[in-house]
Amino acid sequence: MNQVPKTQSQAQPHAPAIRPAGRSYVSGSPVQGDPTGSFHAINPTHGQPTGIVYSAATPQAVDRACTQAWAAFYAIQDRTAEDRALFLEAIAEQILALGDSLIETAIAETGLQPQRLIPERERVVTSLRVLAKTVREGSWVRASLDKADPARKPAPRPDLRRMLRPLGPIAVFGASNFPLAYSAMGTDAASALAAGCPVVVKGHPSHPGAGELVAQAVTTAVGVCGFHPGTYSYLQAGGVRETAIGRELVTHPCIRGVGFTGSFAGGTALADLARTREDPIPVFAEMGSINPVFVLPHAMDEAGKAIAEKLYNSVTSSVGQMCTKPGLIFAVRGDGYVEFEHTLIEMANKGIGHTMLSRKIQGNFAKRLSEIAAIEGVEIRGGSLQTAKLAENMPTEGPVSAVPALLKTKFETFAKHPTLRDECFGPSVILVVCEKSSQLFEAATMIRGSLTGSIMTGPLDGALAKQLHTALEMRVGRIIYNGVPTGVEVAHSMVHGGPFPASNQPQTTAVGPMAMERWCRPVCYQNAPDPLLPIELRNANPLGIARLVDGEWTNKPLGT
Amino acid sequence: MNQVPKTQSQAQPHAPAIRPAGRSYVSGSPVQGDPTGSFHAINPTHGQPTGIVYSAATPQAVDRACTQAWAAFYAIQDRTAEDRALFLEAIAEQILALGDSLIETAIAETGLQPQRLIPERERVVTSLRVLAKTVREGSWVRASLDKADPARKPAPRPDLRRMLRPLGPIAVFGASNFPLAYSAMGTDAASALAAGCPVVVKGHPSHPGAGELVAQAVTTAVGVCGFHPGTYSYLQAGGVRETAIGRELVTHPCIRGVGFTGSFAGGTALADLARTREDPIPVFAEMGSINPVFVLPHAMDEAGKAIAEKLYNSVTSSVGQMCTKPGLIFAVRGDGYVEFEHTLIEMANKGIGHTMLSRKIQGNFAKRLSEIAAIEGVEIRGGSLQTAKLAENMPTEGPVSAVPALLKTKFETFAKHPTLRDECFGPSVILVVCEKSSQLFEAATMIRGSLTGSIMTGPLDGALAKQLHTALEMRVGRIIYNGVPTGVEVAHSMVHGGPFPASNQPQTTAVGPMAMERWCRPVCYQNAPDPLLPIELRNANPLGIARLVDGEWTNKPLGT
Repeated sequence: MNQVPKTQSQAQPHAPAIRPAGRSYVSGSPVQGDPTGSFHAINPTHGQPTGIVYSAATPQAVDRACTQAWAAFYAIQDRTAEDRALFLEAIAEQILALGDSLIETAIAETGLQPQRLIPERERVVTSLRVLAKTVREGSWVRASLDKADPARKPAPRPDLRRMLRPLGPIAVFGASNFPLAYSAMGTDAASALAAGCPVVVKGHPSHPGAGELVAQAVTTAVGVCGFHPGTYSYLQAGGVRETAIGRELVTHPCIRGVGFTGSFAGGTALADLARTREDPIPVFAEMGSINPVFVLPHAMDEAGKAIAEKLYNSVTSSVGQMCTKPGLIFAVRGDGYVEFEHTLIEMANKGIGHTMLSRKIQGNFAKRLSEIAAIEGVEIRGGSLQTAKLAENMPTEGPVSAVPALLKTKFETFAKHPTLRDECFGPSVILVVCEKSSQLFEAATMIRGSLTGSIMTGPLDGALAKQLHTALEMRVGRIIYNGVPTGVEVAHSMVHGGPFPASNQPQTTAVGPMAMERWCRPVCYQNAPDPLLPIELRNANPLGIARLVDGEWTNKPLGT
Repeated sequence: MNQVPKTQSQAQPHAPAIRPAGRSYVSGSPVQGDPTGSFHAINPTHGQPTGIVYSAATPQAVDRACTQAWAAFYAIQDRTAEDRALFLEAIAEQILALGDSLIETAIAETGLQPQRLIPERERVVTSLRVLAKTVREGSWVRASLDKADPARKPAPRPDLRRMLRPLGPIAVFGASNFPLAYSAMGTDAASALAAGCPVVVKGHPSHPGAGELVAQAVTTAVGVCGFHPGTYSYLQAGGVRETAIGRELVTHPCIRGVGFTGSFAGGTALADLARTREDPIPVFAEMGSINPVFVLPHAMDEAGKAIAEKLYNSVTSSVGQMCTKPGLIFAVRGDGYVEFEHTLIEMANKGIGHTMLSRKIQGNFAKRLSEIAAIEGVEIRGGSLQTAKLAENMPTEGPVSAVPALLKTKFETFAKHPTLRDECFGPSVILVVCEKSSQLFEAATMIRGSLTGSIMTGPLDGALAKQLHTALEMRVGRIIYNGVPTGVEVAHSMVHGGPFPASNQPQTTAVGPMAMERWCRPVCYQNAPDPLLPIELRNANPLGIARLVDGEWTNKPLGT
C-alpha cells in the first residue's frame, strides 16, 4: 500500500470541517449522555486529551436503541433487496462526504497516518459497495427448492423450500486498531445491515470522534433512504459506563446476535455472557492471531533478502497493530539464511519509536514483550527491547510510542514454551531457527488457531510446501503463498477467521460478502402458499437468482 | 406412513440371523471391553434384559479409536469424492444386508414396531444415498474463486479461492428414540463421513445390539472399499463407564467436532465440556422442541375434525417419542372448535398403554406430566393421567408403558406459566384455547426456539397466517402449512434445527445434505500454486462443479 489513492475528500480540500460533539446517535437522533458518564479521547501522539468531552450512553439510551432496532427489523423486512443495496451505497457516499474531517479526527485519536487511514476508508466504502452488489444480485441467500411428489409411497413428498433469513438486531463491538474498518460502519455492521439486520454499535472509547462522525453519516443515509430510524444506533461507551453498556447490549432481549473484534479476554467474556441468557444468542468474536510464516529452503536461497524486507514491512505496518501481523517466522539455517537474518536485523536496528494506538495497548505490548524476552533461549537480535523495559515503569503521560523488536530463538526453545505460540500485539516478531526442514512441519503442527499461515516457497520446495499446506489447513483460515498476511482483500473468497483462539466461530468470515451469513440462519418452509413465501423462494423466481432446485443450480422459474 | 415398503430383507426371509455379541468395533475390529464395565439392554415390552451381555469400551479403546481416526483423516483426504460416494453406498448395502436381524434386534431393545423401524431403516439408506449423490456431484463444497488483478492500484489484487474443508475426526452421540436414524449410522455419522471426516460413535446404552450390528455392517463397508480402518469406530457405552466414555471422547485431542441428539441436560453438558478444552471444538446438539401448532379459525370451521385426527396421530406416533411431536396446539373458540375438541377427546379416550423406549424416559414423562397437570388452570380432557400418577411411585420392573394424555388450558394460563413452553417427551399434548385470533399471534411470540411450527390455515385466514408466519420465522427451523411436524424429509431444503433450546447451533441442520457443512469450515487459499489446491479449486475445474467465480455461478473452467 505505497500509493495513496485519490479520494473524494482530497478532491474537495476546502470543505468545511465537521467536528464531533461528544454524542451518541440513537434511532435517528443525536443524544447527549449523563455527565457522570463523561470521558475523553486521548491523542497518543502527545498523550493529551483531544479536547472534546464525550458522554457515555445512559441505560435508557441503550434500551431505546435496542427496542427501536427491534421495530426497525420488521420494517426492513418490508423493503426490497434493491432498497437495501441503495441504502448501503448511500452510507458509502455519506461517509465520503465527511471528507477530511473524518481522516483528521481519526488521526488525532489513533496516531495512525493518513497513508494508512485513507486506504482504510476506501476499504469501508469498497466493502459497502461489494455488499450492495451482492444484495442486489440476491443469490447469496442460498435459496433451495425441492418439489413435492404427491404420488410418492408410502407418504407424499411435501414441497420444501429453504433460504437464509436475518436473525434480528445485532450488537457490534468495534476494535481500537481500525477506527473505520472495524468500527461504527465496519465489516460487522455493514454485513449485518446488508443481511437485513438493524445494528446497535458500542463505540470504542479510543476513537469516539471518528465513530460519532461515521454514525452521523449513517444516520443521514437512513433518513435519505427512508429507512426506519431504529435501523442504526451508535452508543458512546467510555469512562465508568464502558463495561456496563456492553453488558446491557449483550443481555438485551431485542438483541439477536453480537459481533466483536478485539482481545481474547473481551471476546470470551461476551460469549460467556451471551450464553447465560434464557435465549442464548451467537457471538462472533475475532480475537488473537499469531500468523506464522514459513520460509522454505529454496525460497530462502533464491530470495532471502527480498523476503526479509517484505516480512519486516508487514511486521511493522501500522506499528504492528494488525490482527494479521506475522508474529512467528520459521526458517531453516542454510546458505540463504545468513543474508535473510542480516536484512531483518539491519531493518530492525533502523527502527525508531512510532505512535501506538493507546496507553493500554502500549502497556500490554511492553508487558508481553518483556515476558517473551525473559524466556531462556530467546534473544534480542534487532531493534530494541526499550519498549519491553517500559513494563517495569510504565509512563502515564507524554507520547504513546513503541520501538520495533526482532527476537530470535531455536526450534527447541519454541517447542518447549507454549507461550511463544500466543499473540504479541505490537511491532515485534520472533524468528524461530530450525536445523532441518522437518522442524518446519513439526512447528506447523504446534500452531494454535490463526487467521493466516504463510508459505514462502520456491519451485523446488514443492514436497515440503505440500506438507505444510496440509498442517496449516487444520489450523488457519487463510493459507498465503509467497505473500504477507497483512492486507485483507474484500472478496467473495476471503476467509478472515480461523480456529480458536483466532475466532470462536471458525465456520464464518468477518470480511467479504459471506460475512452476511453470520447474521442469518436457514429457515425451511413446508407446503407454504406461494404469496406467503419470501420473494426469493416463489415459483416465478422474480429476482432471477441462482437457486438449488432439486439439488441443481438454476436461475429459472420453478417448473420450467 | 401406513404402507410398509418392501425391503431387501423382506425379500430374503430365510437369511440366517445375525446376533450382536456385546462388543465395540474399534478401527476395523470387534473389541471386547473390560468385564467391570458390562451392562444389559432392557426389552421395554416386558422390562427384562435382552440376554446379551455388553461390555463398555475401555479408556484404551476410546483412545485407540480417536488416534486411529486421526490417521484415517489424512488417508481419506487422498481418496476422491467418487470413492467417498461409493463408500456411503456400500454402507447402505451392508446395512440392508443385515436383513431382519437388525429390525428384530431393534424391536427387542426399543419396543418400537416394525411399521416404524422398517421405514426408519429406509430413511438411513435414503440419507446415505442422497449424501453419496451430493458428494459425487461435488458442488456442495461452496467453491469460490476470485481472479488476481496484478494491475490494480494501489496494490495488486491476489488470487483468492475458498471452499469448505473437513474438520477432522467427529464424535457422534446417538439418541434413544431413533435406534437407526440417529445412531450408529444416523444422520450425524453419515454426513460427517460424507464430508470426509472419520467418525467415532458413542453407542446409546438403550439399543447396543442394533448399534453393534450397524457398526459391523459399516466396518465391512470400510474393508470392502479399502478405506483406512480408523475411518469408523463404534464404542459400546453403558453401565459405570457411560458418562466417562462421553467425557473421554469430547476431550480427546484428536476429536475435532461433536454431534449430539438427546436431552437438554446432555447437550449443554457436552457443549460446556468442549469449551473447557485448550482448543475448543464445536458441539452440534439437537435438544428439546415444543413444535407448536396453530389452528386458524377458517381452517377450523372447514376441517376441524380432520385436523384433530391428523394432530392426534402425530402426537401419539412412536408413542410421542419424537423430537418433532406437536406439544402445543393453539385454537380459537368458535363454530368449528367444538367438533375439533370433541374429536381429540374421543381419540385420546380410546388411547391405551403403549411401550416406551426405556424406564428412564417413562419416568421423565411421568414426572413432567405430573408437573404440568399440577398447574392451576390445566385440566385433563382426554386420555388419562395414569402415567402422571406413576411419578409418585415409579415401577422398577414389568412392562415400560405409557397412556396418552390430552391436556387443556386457557391462553391466560399458558401466558402465566413459562414451564408450559417446555417440552414434554411422550404421548401428550396441551390444547391452549384462545378467546380471539390475536391471542394466536401473542402465543407465537412467546414460543421458545423450536424445530418446527405449524399453521393450519384456510383460504380466508391469509392475514392471520402471515402474522404467525412472521413470528414463527424468528423462532423455528421449519414452518409447516397444513401438515404435521412429525416426518422429516431427507432433502436439500430440509432444516432440522432451530433456535435454542431446539438446538445450540441454529445456523445448521441435522438432516439433509446441508448437514455436511457442520463438519467443515471454509479455508481460503491466496496465490496458491494450482497443483497444491484441492481439486475443486483448480483452474481446469476437473470435476465440473458449480463454482462462484468473481461472484457468479458457473461450471466452466477458469478463464473460459
